[in-house]
Amino acid sequence: MTGGTSNFDRETAVEPLGPGRFSVQVSDRWNIGDNPNGGYLVSMALQALRHLGPHQDPLSVTTHFLRPGSGTRPGEIHTELVRSGRSVTTGRASLVQDGKARIEVLAALGDLSGGSGHEVDLTLPPPTGMPPVEECVDRNDLEQGVTLFIAERIDLRVDPAMSRAGSTDAAEMRAWIRFADERPPDTLAAVMFSDAFAPSIFTRLGRVGWVPTIELTVHIRRRPAPGWMVGRFVTEDLHDGRMIEDGWLWDAEGALVARSRQLAMLLPGADTSA
Amino acid sequence: MTGGTSNFDRETAVEPLGPGRFSVQVSDRWNIGDNPNGGYLVSMALQALRHLGPHQDPLSVTTHFLRPGSGTRPGEIHTELVRSGRSVTTGRASLVQDGKARIEVLAALGDLSGGSGHEVDLTLPPPTGMPPVEECVDRNDLEQGVTLFIAERIDLRVDPAMSRAGSTDAAEMRAWIRFADERPPDTLAAVMFSDAFAPSIFTRLGRVGWVPTIELTVHIRRRPAPGWMVGRFVTEDLHDGRMIEDGWLWDAEGALVARSRQLAMLLPGADTSA
Repeated sequence: MTGGTSNFDRETAVEPLGPGRFSVQVSDRWNIGDNPNGGYLVSMALQALRHLGPHQDPLSVTTHFLRPGSGTRPGEIHTELVRSGRSVTTGRASLVQDGKARIEVLAALGDLSGGSGHEVDLTLPPPTGMPPVEECVDRNDLEQGVTLFIAERIDLRVDPAMSRAGSTDAAEMRAWIRFADERPPDTLAAVMFSDAFAPSIFTRLGRVGWVPTIELTVHIRRRPAPGWMVGRFVTEDLHDGRMIEDGWLWDAEGALVARSRQLAMLLPGADTSA
Repeated sequence: MTGGTSNFDRETAVEPLGPGRFSVQVSDRWNIGDNPNGGYLVSMALQALRHLGPHQDPLSVTTHFLRPGSGTRPGEIHTELVRSGRSVTTGRASLVQDGKARIEVLAALGDLSGGSGHEVDLTLPPPTGMPPVEECVDRNDLEQGVTLFIAERIDLRVDPAMSRAGSTDAAEMRAWIRFADERPPDTLAAVMFSDAFAPSIFTRLGRVGWVPTIELTVHIRRRPAPGWMVGRFVTEDLHDGRMIEDGWLWDAEGALVARSRQLAMLLPGADTSA
């Protein structure tokens, strides 16, 4: 399947309306319960930001989630060039639906095709002991108490050790991920995948329902190889109802593709009803 | 010393000029070589963003460093309210000097005084084995090849194991930090401190000179207790001349106060001249 005809490409497509303005049709096929997945909305904003200059790979993407998007409404993306540099294009974007901004994005784009001439390479290997895909648990079989429309678009296979609510003290989630239509991952997909896993707090607290993200920052390090990617997400700090979740995403060849961190909020009662 | 008369408060003060516009006088006392420290510039932007609403604690602060600031020039900060919520105020700010934007900030501010009623607490303890302050090495004694004017403002004491250029394979930096005038840390200071350590890549590559930051995101988790803070910074991934450095900052009582990540660039030749 080529990129252009995949669900992801078709359902994140942006249509130029004028300088810095794009129309989008937000799909409900990426919903988690009533709300479109955040990473899906960010992907649309990135499609628009790619029009700002020659740089097509997201290097650093920060999104503030202001209000839930709507998966059945059209929208507009407004972009603004912050700086155009030789190696980095910096821009901001907002997704507006029904006159209200839903997300605000600040991003740096660059070229991850390589060849800077720098020699030293340090990296972080993928986790050891991850069971093969066929031994993992489909996300739909997790007891999450929310309808995962997104499962038609994203194939997520969870490490069985992390598939039961409240099963570990560590608040960790590990899983394989790919597009359900097997579109090969790229740097845009890696941003979306960084927000597409079951919340890691699930393995500690059990069913927590929707965990609204306040802000998410993703750093993309390399263009991913084709095939399944593997992600690890850890709730590192939970205090006074606010948590930060740290994430890693590796490609099928074991190269670190993305690092992410998000600030999220537990809704009232979420930590006492498990 | 009270906050109002400290160097940090005086030298990050912003003067309202009109709606969303503030004048600032950037000091050269926070310079590293010719350029003001990035965290110092961010602190000014945060002072301005505090005028947007009732929320005074930075929760999540993303800064894109567009051009170096100037430590001998006045400037203006322009702010814009992105969203005003009950628990979070979201805003953007830019610092402009000589007609050019130097930094672009997107931040969420909230209230970290506690009391949400949530019960579960997960956190990350400080590193063990950190030598006491008096056994650590003054930052000025590191071979960094750059004049650290900032040392008059920030007292940084480096773990001796990480004080020699190219001394470890791990690319890790650990140190105690406080304001030189002993102003107690607060949530704003924690943002600044997250960008005030010697670069962790130093312990692996040796003298690398200025390591320009493309983007820095800091999450503040708690208001810090008075006294020295301790920070740990690790270069987790260096590839094709771009690196991400991950950071942790704890207060004197061992509570995790800040998590940070920055995307930075090695200048040409920096990794081959050590």
